[in-house]
Amino acid sequence: MTMLRTTSCGTLSLADVGKEVILNGWVQRRRDLGGVLFIDLRDRTGIVQIVFNPDFSGEALEIADRVRNEYVLAVKGTVVERDPETFNDNLFTGKIEVRVTEIEVMNAAKTPPFAIEDGIEVDESIRLKYRYLDLRRPEMLKTLQLRSKAAKIFRDFLDQNEFTEIETPILTKSTPEGARDYLVPSRVHEGEFFALPQSPQIFKQLLMVGGIERYYQIARCFRDEDLRADRQPEFTQVDIETSFLSQDQLLAMMEQLMAKLLRETVGVELQLPFQRITYKDAMNKYGSDKPDLRFGLEIEDITDIVASSDVKVFATVASKGGVVKALNAKGCASWSRKELDDLQPFAARYGGKGLAWIQVKDGEWRGPIVKFLKEEEIAALTERLNVEEGDLLTFSADKPKVVADVLGNLRLKLGKELNLINESEFKFAWVVDFPLLGYDEEAKRYVAEHHPFTRPNEDDLAYFDTDPGQIRAQAYDLVLNGYEVGGGSMRIYKRDVQEKMFKALGFTMEEAYEKFGFLLDAFDYGTPPHGGIAFGFDRLIMLLAGRTNLRETIAFPKTASATDLMSDAPSEVELSQLEQLHIRTVVKPKPAAAVQAVAAEAE
Amino acid sequence: MTMLRTTSCGTLSLADVGKEVILNGWVQRRRDLGGVLFIDLRDRTGIVQIVFNPDFSGEALEIADRVRNEYVLAVKGTVVERDPETFNDNLFTGKIEVRVTEIEVMNAAKTPPFAIEDGIEVDESIRLKYRYLDLRRPEMLKTLQLRSKAAKIFRDFLDQNEFTEIETPILTKSTPEGARDYLVPSRVHEGEFFALPQSPQIFKQLLMVGGIERYYQIARCFRDEDLRADRQPEFTQVDIETSFLSQDQLLAMMEQLMAKLLRETVGVELQLPFQRITYKDAMNKYGSDKPDLRFGLEIEDITDIVASSDVKVFATVASKGGVVKALNAKGCASWSRKELDDLQPFAARYGGKGLAWIQVKDGEWRGPIVKFLKEEEIAALTERLNVEEGDLLTFSADKPKVVADVLGNLRLKLGKELNLINESEFKFAWVVDFPLLGYDEEAKRYVAEHHPFTRPNEDDLAYFDTDPGQIRAQAYDLVLNGYEVGGGSMRIYKRDVQEKMFKALGFTMEEAYEKFGFLLDAFDYGTPPHGGIAFGFDRLIMLLAGRTNLRETIAFPKTASATDLMSDAPSEVELSQLEQLHIRTVVKPKPAAAVQAVAAEAE
Repeated sequence: MTMLRTTSCGTLSLADVGKEVILNGWVQRRRDLGGVLFIDLRDRTGIVQIVFNPDFSGEALEIADRVRNEYVLAVKGTVVERDPETFNDNLFTGKIEVRVTEIEVMNAAKTPPFAIEDGIEVDESIRLKYRYLDLRRPEMLKTLQLRSKAAKIFRDFLDQNEFTEIETPILTKSTPEGARDYLVPSRVHEGEFFALPQSPQIFKQLLMVGGIERYYQIARCFRDEDLRADRQPEFTQVDIETSFLSQDQLLAMMEQLMAKLLRETVGVELQLPFQRITYKDAMNKYGSDKPDLRFGLEIEDITDIVASSDVKVFATVASKGGVVKALNAKGCASWSRKELDDLQPFAARYGGKGLAWIQVKDGEWRGPIVKFLKEEEIAALTERLNVEEGDLLTFSADKPKVVADVLGNLRLKLGKELNLINESEFKFAWVVDFPLLGYDEEAKRYVAEHHPFTRPNEDDLAYFDTDPGQIRAQAYDLVLNGYEVGGGSMRIYKRDVQEKMFKALGFTMEEAYEKFGFLLDAFDYGTPPHGGIAFGFDRLIMLLAGRTNLRETIAFPKTASATDLMSDAPSEVELSQLEQLHIRTVVKPKPAAAVQAVAAEAE
Repeated sequence: MTMLRTTSCGTLSLADVGKEVILNGWVQRRRDLGGVLFIDLRDRTGIVQIVFNPDFSGEALEIADRVRNEYVLAVKGTVVERDPETFNDNLFTGKIEVRVTEIEVMNAAKTPPFAIEDGIEVDESIRLKYRYLDLRRPEMLKTLQLRSKAAKIFRDFLDQNEFTEIETPILTKSTPEGARDYLVPSRVHEGEFFALPQSPQIFKQLLMVGGIERYYQIARCFRDEDLRADRQPEFTQVDIETSFLSQDQLLAMMEQLMAKLLRETVGVELQLPFQRITYKDAMNKYGSDKPDLRFGLEIEDITDIVASSDVKVFATVASKGGVVKALNAKGCASWSRKELDDLQPFAARYGGKGLAWIQVKDGEWRGPIVKFLKEEEIAALTERLNVEEGDLLTFSADKPKVVADVLGNLRLKLGKELNLINESEFKFAWVVDFPLLGYDEEAKRYVAEHHPFTRPNEDDLAYFDTDPGQIRAQAYDLVLNGYEVGGGSMRIYKRDVQEKMFKALGFTMEEAYEKFGFLLDAFDYGTPPHGGIAFGFDRLIMLLAGRTNLRETIAFPKTASATDLMSDAPSEVELSQLEQLHIRTVVKPKPAAAVQAVAAEAE
């Protein structure tokens, strides 16, 4: 390594003409035009064209003639203006090129399994196996750089607001409830295990007891769940906790944080304050607690209108405490029979028994249920649903949860299909007033919707004795374009409220101590009012980068089966390692067919 | 929570006199002086005195009368200047006090198990069990704030130098060599395990293959080792890797980073560049590869002088290829017989068979070996060791490693006892030119001193065929006041050098592929010249904060037996959890005595 770069490939411009430079980088591509060799040289800053010509390159041309894509080069040369006819406006460096006088081949390269460029159509498993090559592609590099920048923005803002960054342990204690823990056997303590944290929740509350007042951490968290496209076994959250702030103060501060983040990453100026919508309204109007508010298309409750309708399913559901709701798909009266038929399996996918519909076409209401509707029902629906020529009215009747799922998802589908969504918009909102408790039909008791330390709304405390399900929590989610990107709550800090909470959950304080031991001990020593939030960092980056998959935002992600295709982790380990950890594996014998197949292969 | 703070306790000064403020904080202490109540109220910014007086406090005084230490209060009041006679110069807020008109007791507190103040003498296990109270003590809070600030400084510097912060996985693949891995059983993949990373070494090299060029991460690392005072099972390192830089360029950049760190944390301006000392010189002069350079007291090799001495042990050792070295303990001729005798067990602790000594007292050389020294040997020693009246000469004769350990540790002991160390100095140096390979007597082969991808010094490549032990590595450690605070190397990027390296280690390329598989695959696709460093973040903070124990720098540390005394992790888990992970524990039955003891207790 003798020729150390003096400058970067992607930064050269007409201002550099005449300068002698040394560049280091990778061969993006090469073209031989009648004995003159053009190479696009790439580094992390971009691409520049370098030229080898017998007139000025001497034996560098001969050496260059043998290089191939992805070779690593060092070249010395002079920056010259290109012939204006060959200006390349797609490239920052497109007006210049570098005439090479010296070359060093720093390293050769095998032919990569896919092209090092954006927009390739390659099976994702190949990209993951060769992640070190995938990361060379500009769109991957840019996403990682965006992620790094976003982390910096978070940290700068929190630092300016006097937060202390504190690292909490990864080797922690297994907790009895919630998602599955990843466990780590202890060598020193036979038969005992650490657990990887699902979040630093307990530690951050302890830090508030510890007088830190403002804590943050960009923290790795772990959940051993069956994975979906937008889950990873290890993920990153920006974890925040504060003391002595009201919910309003905390949310206002977090809005400022999001405003800075969007301004400095995607150049978007957000309107503050964010819209706040209650959980109840979100479920009613959008059928979701993470509504996409980039478009309207609100769901309407029509239970009152059809409660005694001759449409039997409506009347029956209404009489059993269910709800009937409608979504007016503007301009969809022209849907084909097939499109209308497809609504039934669509509803079924979200637990619905069906979707009734009415086409408003040629001045008429058409569809199977129309004949059962009374005139005054039609009048009331026309008004409530703002019915106009060309509309398609859709109806779901079921338990509230099912209706919300069916129509909420239909709303999202229509939003996309009817092009109601401005894809460049970033629409934040707070969903607030979540219920504190939900009734678990199986366990026949109330369970915490957020966690058992979530502070109830002070106006609702009386409901602990009468109707716990009515209590609103001081809990909030931050939603962005239909995704939950953050969530948190104010925490209980008063002993009497905590006791009411445990009682509502069906625990005695003794049982609570068994479950939450040292945290409850800590609360006895002067706990300040506190509350916090955690942002899903991977998902935020995904949305800022305009990607649709969390794996695109993570340097070395895992697949849906929690495998690293590059390193082939997890893997078998030496028996001696397990012995030291006082464990052994319990593996089901392979089915006979598999054994035979292996035996056959061995021959 | 009705009274939200308008300002912080520790920031009030004469400039605020006359203002009405609301403060939130903890009761540090209370004094009742003839019906007037004084409370020191503490928050994260410091302490302020608040006063309750029947004249202006009304019923707030009655309420305040019932509060105790560590209660959480909100108070409203007016800032007034204190009577100059009661100014407290130890307190930033010492010239003012706040006359309280309203109070809210936000929370009560049990009496803490130790005082919330600096310099307490409490068993560390109590502090760890109640870590949430320990963290309230100003010295702990300040150390965590220093740690947070240091992390910010690292990040700001690296960001300014165009580094990209990238998170690498915590769930990784177990590697066959090195320290013990923490393992994580996989639920999805029966009988397989993830490993927690001992460092992100492989990932950071892959990121260089991936074209990132400048990577950093403040990374959690894990080693399942038997712990000493300065080890933790999980620890934090600032992990850095770069492409296309020479070793000199990288070290110069890291010196700038350290200069910024020291300037902005402890206000010390470092002299750049740092001293560079070869491994060989460090071992020879200081008996250590992490010398404390705040003082001289260099070790001298006298093998040549005493090779044919009548001091038999000297001559014998010299003839067998060992070395004889001396340390001149200036002014220690007056040591007592006991002090001199104690040198023998001291030497034994570091593997030495003994320590010869000579007192230079009243113009004479005294001691058991003096009579065996020839006149010309005394003359040569006088010159080499700069012998003067009052000196104590100490001698160790053994294998080089043993002599280095004995005299290196004696040097440190003398440095402290003779007050040669300026405790406020921060003395950095690079130790360079480490050997690439060490000969493993047991395995009868060379092993990598750093790791198998460490780049050899280009001038030494010929030694691969003749004397591999002579090859110097492009590896470097950063030492500070006798501690290793960082270390790294330039990496091999050329295939032919890598093959020579594996050959020297006794592997065929085939065996190497078995061990390092995907990393070697990656190196085939155009690997840039690269190298990096990792800083021990916990230890750096320890030194900057002037502490002597890594646990003081970590919010929730573990004990020497890798236990969290607060949460009691690790712990037993449910059998069902283990079943899902396809493992079971293999626990030795408890000795009968223990079982009986338990049975007795149960009665």
